[in-house]
Amino acid sequence: MATLGFNRYGKAEVRVVSVRRDGAMHHVLDRNVSMSLSGEMDAVYRTGDNSAVLATDTQKNTAYAFAKSHGPLETEAYARALAEHFVTSQPTIARARVEVDEYGWDRIGSTGHSFVRNGSETRTTIAIQDEAEGLSIVSGVKDMVVMNSTDSEFWGFIDDPYTTLPPTTDRILATQVSALWRFRPDALDSLDWAKAYLDARAALLEAFAGTYSYSLQQTIFAIGEAIMAAVPEVCEVRLALPNKHHFLVDLAPFGLENSNEVYFAADRPYGLIEGEILADDAPAPGLAWG
Amino acid sequence: MATLGFNRYGKAEVRVVSVRRDGAMHHVLDRNVSMSLSGEMDAVYRTGDNSAVLATDTQKNTAYAFAKSHGPLETEAYARALAEHFVTSQPTIARARVEVDEYGWDRIGSTGHSFVRNGSETRTTIAIQDEAEGLSIVSGVKDMVVMNSTDSEFWGFIDDPYTTLPPTTDRILATQVSALWRFRPDALDSLDWAKAYLDARAALLEAFAGTYSYSLQQTIFAIGEAIMAAVPEVCEVRLALPNKHHFLVDLAPFGLENSNEVYFAADRPYGLIEGEILADDAPAPGLAWG
Amino acid sequence: MATLGFNRYGKAEVRVVSVRRDGAMHHVLDRNVSMSLSGEMDAVYRTGDNSAVLATDTQKNTAYAFAKSHGPLETEAYARALAEHFVTSQPTIARARVEVDEYGWDRIGSTGHSFVRNGSETRTTIAIQDEAEGLSIVSGVKDMVVMNSTDSEFWGFIDDPYTTLPPTTDRILATQVSALWRFRPDALDSLDWAKAYLDARAALLEAFAGTYSYSLQQTIFAIGEAIMAAVPEVCEVRLALPNKHHFLVDLAPFGLENSNEVYFAADRPYGLIEGEILADDAPAPGLAWG
Amino acid sequence: MATLGFNRYGKAEVRVVSVRRDGAMHHVLDRNVSMSLSGEMDAVYRTGDNSAVLATDTQKNTAYAFAKSHGPLETEAYARALAEHFVTSQPTIARARVEVDEYGWDRIGSTGHSFVRNGSETRTTIAIQDEAEGLSIVSGVKDMVVMNSTDSEFWGFIDDPYTTLPPTTDRILATQVSALWRFRPDALDSLDWAKAYLDARAALLEAFAGTYSYSLQQTIFAIGEAIMAAVPEVCEVRLALPNKHHFLVDLAPFGLENSNEVYFAADRPYGLIEGEILADDAPAPGLAWG
Repeated sequence: MATLGFNRYGKAEVRVVSVRRDGAMHHVLDRNVSMSLSGEMDAVYRTGDNSAVLATDTQKNTAYAFAKSHGPLETEAYARALAEHFVTSQPTIARARVEVDEYGWDRIGSTGHSFVRNGSETRTTIAIQDEAEGLSIVSGVKDMVVMNSTDSEFWGFIDDPYTTLPPTTDRILATQVSALWRFRPDALDSLDWAKAYLDARAALLEAFAGTYSYSLQQTIFAIGEAIMAAVPEVCEVRLALPNKHHFLVDLAPFGLENSNEVYFAADRPYGLIEGEILADDAPAPGLAWG
Repeated sequence: MATLGFNRYGKAEVRVVSVRRDGAMHHVLDRNVSMSLSGEMDAVYRTGDNSAVLATDTQKNTAYAFAKSHGPLETEAYARALAEHFVTSQPTIARARVEVDEYGWDRIGSTGHSFVRNGSETRTTIAIQDEAEGLSIVSGVKDMVVMNSTDSEFWGFIDDPYTTLPPTTDRILATQVSALWRFRPDALDSLDWAKAYLDARAALLEAFAGTYSYSLQQTIFAIGEAIMAAVPEVCEVRLALPNKHHFLVDLAPFGLENSNEVYFAADRPYGLIEGEILADDAPAPGLAWG
Repeated sequence: MATLGFNRYGKAEVRVVSVRRDGAMHHVLDRNVSMSLSGEMDAVYRTGDNSAVLATDTQKNTAYAFAKSHGPLETEAYARALAEHFVTSQPTIARARVEVDEYGWDRIGSTGHSFVRNGSETRTTIAIQDEAEGLSIVSGVKDMVVMNSTDSEFWGFIDDPYTTLPPTTDRILATQVSALWRFRPDALDSLDWAKAYLDARAALLEAFAGTYSYSLQQTIFAIGEAIMAAVPEVCEVRLALPNKHHFLVDLAPFGLENSNEVYFAADRPYGLIEGEILADDAPAPGLAWG
Repeated sequence: MATLGFNRYGKAEVRVVSVRRDGAMHHVLDRNVSMSLSGEMDAVYRTGDNSAVLATDTQKNTAYAFAKSHGPLETEAYARALAEHFVTSQPTIARARVEVDEYGWDRIGSTGHSFVRNGSETRTTIAIQDEAEGLSIVSGVKDMVVMNSTDSEFWGFIDDPYTTLPPTTDRILATQVSALWRFRPDALDSLDWAKAYLDARAALLEAFAGTYSYSLQQTIFAIGEAIMAAVPEVCEVRLALPNKHHFLVDLAPFGLENSNEVYFAADRPYGLIEGEILADDAPAPGLAWG
């Protein structure tokens, strides 16, 4: 016999675009919403009895309806509203996880209704509402590509029989930041989400730029500390930073010196450094990372 | 002050291709290797002191060297050899995680050395070696796209105020299978990895094809049970199956009847169903899914 | 003042999936249809007057309707039917281009209605119907990944001041084939499209495998000749073959010899070789490649 | 017998990153270079004789060497220098095509050496040097995503038996711009490439925002005219604009009115409109688009 372990079901990547018209001035919210629900689901897994299932199509409809009925909420508030709705609306839904990615647009021209996508980076939020454990919210940024063209060294590492990398005292440090920061539970009702995002993002960039780095790990720790210093309601930061290697090209065969001027930007393989930085008084995460 | 939580560092997506020559008959192993290591890392995170760090470049070198020095191992054995090496070779490495994707090639022509990539699916393995917890191995398949063109229904789900989906008694069920199966710890030394993979894959396909499905959840459970029945050394199966929706096109405006013949294959949004199926006597997973 | 030059408009990537039921035995056609139309379009470009425009939404509807009304046609016949329809149905449409990609599925299990995607490669066709120039059809294959693990050399190339590549007499030759073959206009009404595709594909693979290669160009020419020999109705073949480099890894630092056993599969940069091979009596292509 | 038609060979996607240090102030050029060469190539295609071939590896080396030896050129000048070099350096190279994509970085922090990628859009240039036809240069922008949330209508199109789309007087117009503009041959020696790019890009955005649009075609023509007006050295503009459909969601089942507020952003299918706009005195393009 087999046992059913953890499971969840939902609708992923619902593309919700909302336009709010303030006279000729339009405001656009461009989001990608992924929802998943958990509860007692033995019947549907064992016999296909769907009576406890809220169809993923219904979840999609709810995301669109809330974009209208709840007005222009901040991303975190919208995700939270959906998560709370699912858990409170049906007895068979014990937990809801709502992840919302938000794409940024800059204004162009003078029409008030014209925009250009402002970068590759994406603002993201995960709200989890659980019958027993309550609410958790983490937010973050994805696909933010940054580079320091100097002030990065790498030396003093282990020299084992497979080590051939020479030490370096001047390299390019480039990465694509994926950062998630967890908010303290007691701060969730009073946060200014827009300000928290802008402050965390600015601290992240400032820490990346301002850290003279002897390893990507050191930069990660500095970023985590900076985000918590800038937004005290954050108690934990998780970062996953690929080291997008830039290798100095050997130009000697062509009679040219390459004094840290010309680099080959490699795709694969890449280093990948992942770390969690926590405030010393961080409460336990509960389900926040589930 | 900030605390350093869980962290790991490694080289990702090392593309190792090995050719073994048996006279004119060549055998190709085409792999993508991602390694990550954990241990006491406070120094590097806080001060950039790399003395406990095995450079990710060294990890890459090790993956290439082992492809030669250890001969043509099965994917699981190769991943295990790397994971064990890292943990035993350096005191600062307490845990190693090695993930290997393997791409399949079919023979073409009669040369013995000519091949064509045989599909979009990928065989995958994750071996984790930990100083305290020992060894765990999970294997699986990714990006296997399957379809049943009938024998799938969906009805009897919750009817809430946001529900508009009509029930159906005949739909296309299409999905892209991501499956991982965990092996019992006491079986790791004696397994025939090639046979285990082929048996699990065959059971997966047979269960998908043979299950008259009232919900994708039901199909997931059937697949999990079938894999454990086919490979008794497997004690747990985790599946993540997107529901790749195929919507019947309304041809009535053109005077045509559409009796389940012509469908629109949608990209986004998609349903996403994730479930774990465990043997009743499954040992605790330890770090296997870490 | 500005002049309007060549232009076209259409609906791209219409995902049409058709199921034909022969009792319990089902047959699936899985296609991606892109259409574009040309004609006298000054009014819409200069003033937004859409009276000559067949909405791209209408084009999409037509693709779905034809999948039902015209039955299970071969890909080339389906593309041709759509192209001819557009040009003959509206005076403002002088030319139609219909490109159809077809994805292959293999049967699994014994149900008759269960399938697995059978590879990364895609069958493709472009049918162009023009009021003045008539019909042209090219077909081909995309994303077919092939490899020879030996019988490939590369030496004797130009040695200029920027040349550092050493000659080699044994390398891996790997590529991702994009091939298009043009049919003779006088053969279009009587061709067995399924057989032509299978014969061309088999000849392509056989020529790739069977050519002892001193350069990828030589392999390209051999493939072109082989396709024309296998399918005499083909008068021209165009090939674009990236050289997916596999570099031998230097294992000497680890005390290991690498006698063409362990390779690094690189992503970028890659060689790219593009060539046209024509029958000596090939008629002029007209608009076929437009 | 078979004839060899048009052919070319080269190295694609060479990732060249250059850092110029002006004291503490660094300047980064981040480029992706693709080169291809043509000439009399019968020998290599028919027999694998590589004596007329400049190895693609050599082409790659040249791109890196020129990044050093030629200093920090504008993208167009760098592409031109490479194209001219190849044609003049070897008798077997009659034509060279050099395509360079350039990625933009914005400064962050106050270090002078810290940057963040500034968007998804890419500046691009194609320089073609031909022994007989001389030099041509086109430049442009790719993957620039723009949106007007109103001032777009679509009605008055053909009503055929497959037409179901209702007319609309207020829709979202969103697209991902691919634009290429051709420079007049007699202007190539004296152009300020940086200014030309900035002026063309600004004119493009202004025309997109400022055009009250009855069809995407109308917007395309306005953009083409605007670029030629802003940069008189441009004599032709080619645009390919997908219509990234945003469909109004029906909220009536949930008792909500949707007065152009909530949209579903669709992926596929999409409209695709391609058009050329030429100055009335545009010289013939020659090989510029080859």
